[in-house]
Amino acid sequence: MRIELVTIGDELLHGKTINTNAATIGRRLVDAGFELAAQATVPDEPASLEAFLKEVLERAGVVITSGGLGPTVDDNTRDVLARLFGKKRFRTDKRVLAHLERRYRRKPWKPVLDQARVPVGTTVILNTVGTAPGLIFEAKGKAAIALPGPPRELVPMLDRVVAFLKNISSGTGAFASTTLRTAGIRESLLDAQLKKIFPDVPGLSYGLAADPYLVDIRLFARRRTEQAAERAIAKAEKILRTHFAHDIYAVGNTALEQVVGEMLLERKRTVALAESCTGGLLGRLITEVPGSSAYFRGGVVAYSNDWKQLFLDVPTAMLDEHGAVSRDVALAMAANVRRTGRADYGVAITGVAGPAGGTKEKPVGLVYIAVEGPDGADCWEYNIPGERDMVRTLSARAALNHLRLALLNVSPTTDKTASD
Amino acid sequence: MRIELVTIGDELLHGKTINTNAATIGRRLVDAGFELAAQATVPDEPASLEAFLKEVLERAGVVITSGGLGPTVDDNTRDVLARLFGKKRFRTDKRVLAHLERRYRRKPWKPVLDQARVPVGTTVILNTVGTAPGLIFEAKGKAAIALPGPPRELVPMLDRVVAFLKNISSGTGAFASTTLRTAGIRESLLDAQLKKIFPDVPGLSYGLAADPYLVDIRLFARRRTEQAAERAIAKAEKILRTHFAHDIYAVGNTALEQVVGEMLLERKRTVALAESCTGGLLGRLITEVPGSSAYFRGGVVAYSNDWKQLFLDVPTAMLDEHGAVSRDVALAMAANVRRTGRADYGVAITGVAGPAGGTKEKPVGLVYIAVEGPDGADCWEYNIPGERDMVRTLSARAALNHLRLALLNVSPTTDKTASD
Repeated sequence: MRIELVTIGDELLHGKTINTNAATIGRRLVDAGFELAAQATVPDEPASLEAFLKEVLERAGVVITSGGLGPTVDDNTRDVLARLFGKKRFRTDKRVLAHLERRYRRKPWKPVLDQARVPVGTTVILNTVGTAPGLIFEAKGKAAIALPGPPRELVPMLDRVVAFLKNISSGTGAFASTTLRTAGIRESLLDAQLKKIFPDVPGLSYGLAADPYLVDIRLFARRRTEQAAERAIAKAEKILRTHFAHDIYAVGNTALEQVVGEMLLERKRTVALAESCTGGLLGRLITEVPGSSAYFRGGVVAYSNDWKQLFLDVPTAMLDEHGAVSRDVALAMAANVRRTGRADYGVAITGVAGPAGGTKEKPVGLVYIAVEGPDGADCWEYNIPGERDMVRTLSARAALNHLRLALLNVSPTTDKTASD
Repeated sequence: MRIELVTIGDELLHGKTINTNAATIGRRLVDAGFELAAQATVPDEPASLEAFLKEVLERAGVVITSGGLGPTVDDNTRDVLARLFGKKRFRTDKRVLAHLERRYRRKPWKPVLDQARVPVGTTVILNTVGTAPGLIFEAKGKAAIALPGPPRELVPMLDRVVAFLKNISSGTGAFASTTLRTAGIRESLLDAQLKKIFPDVPGLSYGLAADPYLVDIRLFARRRTEQAAERAIAKAEKILRTHFAHDIYAVGNTALEQVVGEMLLERKRTVALAESCTGGLLGRLITEVPGSSAYFRGGVVAYSNDWKQLFLDVPTAMLDEHGAVSRDVALAMAANVRRTGRADYGVAITGVAGPAGGTKEKPVGLVYIAVEGPDGADCWEYNIPGERDMVRTLSARAALNHLRLALLNVSPTTDKTASD
């Protein structure tokens, strides 16, 4: 079954909007065992849109569209697809109409209400976040799934999209998948280890999706029944868990900062930060989680040497002897922010982010991360290749992961980190 | 001249990589007076790539490709385009070869050196950041511009791409453009004002590109000669500068944090931050600029009430009487971080980012921003609509802009800010 994606809108072609929908949908399909064969972006002009979609439907079994479903004159996707699928009659969908009326206190503008008009014989996907519903068109063994353009409206509809695709492709067996999220293992090392330990069973496979410091392992299984596929996934997951243990921080989509936040909440622990080269990045990351004020006490960004004395009581003698980027200073920063900031855990980062400031002894990319908690203190040295952004991002994520491991009271499972 | 973009790579279709190249190229073309008619992403399989590009070249005058230029077996773009443009002979480009050998200390892997092999009759764009050169193919009134996939390699080549496009389209007159970057004016208000004041002259136009709090005005002029086009742009810019004055923070691509950084450097001034709801976001923004340690002293992220006392000496009585989200507390935070942190400017943000924590008196989105400097102190109240991310992003940008205005010793030109 060939699936193509067509994203519609001048704002994409003019570069006003980055096409995140393409990546979101592509990733979601891979997770579900499908694959986009191609993606295209076209303007929202109806005649050229119709010609283009007609061509796509000649080669593809399913076309997914995003955009052009709203209430303005630029929104032509519904009517164009209705023509292509020979749907001439429209009806008012009562559920969509009630939803639209609930969203507006006053009588909505007529074009808004018109979004409840759907071609007879199409399947409606309710838009819980916005107004334009998604629509599934089917005819002659072909299907079109029309989704709205705004990501926050589109994303909640993808469950229905995947369910529809599974349904129409069910002849080929059942499929199950899961994602294990790891922190601190290099992609190439993870891949090498997986090649050794991954069960060599037909229909069972994995894929890696790597971000700095964080690599997702996606497991896929195809079996005759859904239960069998899920059993195969569970078995593979068990093997990987034995091997990677605490390097796996989550299953599914949960972010590292969320995992750490939930652990702090659950254990009724708090954290304070002392950042240097990351300049506030770790604080920002932790406070992206709504409700983080329950466990995040605060942070000191000591970007200059004397701030490390003024706000973090790092002794001048220590700074003079070891330099600001050193194990001793990192440990002192963590200890002092924990004490003065009245937190259960103190986390400190000090390093050389570059491009300037590196020396032969302390090159760009050298970073010390320290964590002090009720069970003691520890410090790790990282040598991060790459540019300023990479050094900063990787440092913040590594610090967050070391806090997680301290909360678990364990060390990393593998020795090799993403830093080398 | 119809221009289409073809981005090549499975990682885009699988959603491992977000297609930022499409937006970057789209935006860059618009800035130069061109436009992408369509964009497509296809897998890097050579046969289907060739068929696809052939089809595109039947309708488009120019196809720009990104990806598939590297040294691995997945990289087929060069050879596919060579076949389509009838370029059968290859030569070794000495400049590319020398560049490749310089980048490697030891003898490079043969496929790396093979990147210096280019079809005879193509134009080479040197890759200053990576290894694979860009290539321009021309035949029978059609052109293909092949660029590498990694954004950091592709972006520096876009000047050459624009120059080539201007060159082949020069029959249609000369074109000039510029971008004026504004802070703090809502897009709709800016548009309404521009409609009134923008000179009504044929061949002169503007476009808006809006980001939260920051809106770019792009000016386009088409004239018989390049000088005439540039004169038209200069004239329009002068009118807009009279009207928007200090709301314009930069011309071109310079970021707000860079502008503020340069002002601080030039005036030999330093800054310290006291953040609350933004959790370190402003510090991160300021320290994204390499060399920011010359003027950024540090920041305190006082996420809990007692941290505002512990690290920022905000009196308990003040917190009790006015609450942490108040004008008085914002001003005290700015004043105290400036004094204790030994900086010329103190900038403070305190607000309700949501989703929880809002009350009837102090709803989600209420934010106070204070700046204290050598010329005195001031505080601004914002009521930011939208969600947590928007409240935080807009607050950090507004604070940075108020620091800029304080450095200029002026107030915002327009009353209406992006906050309402």
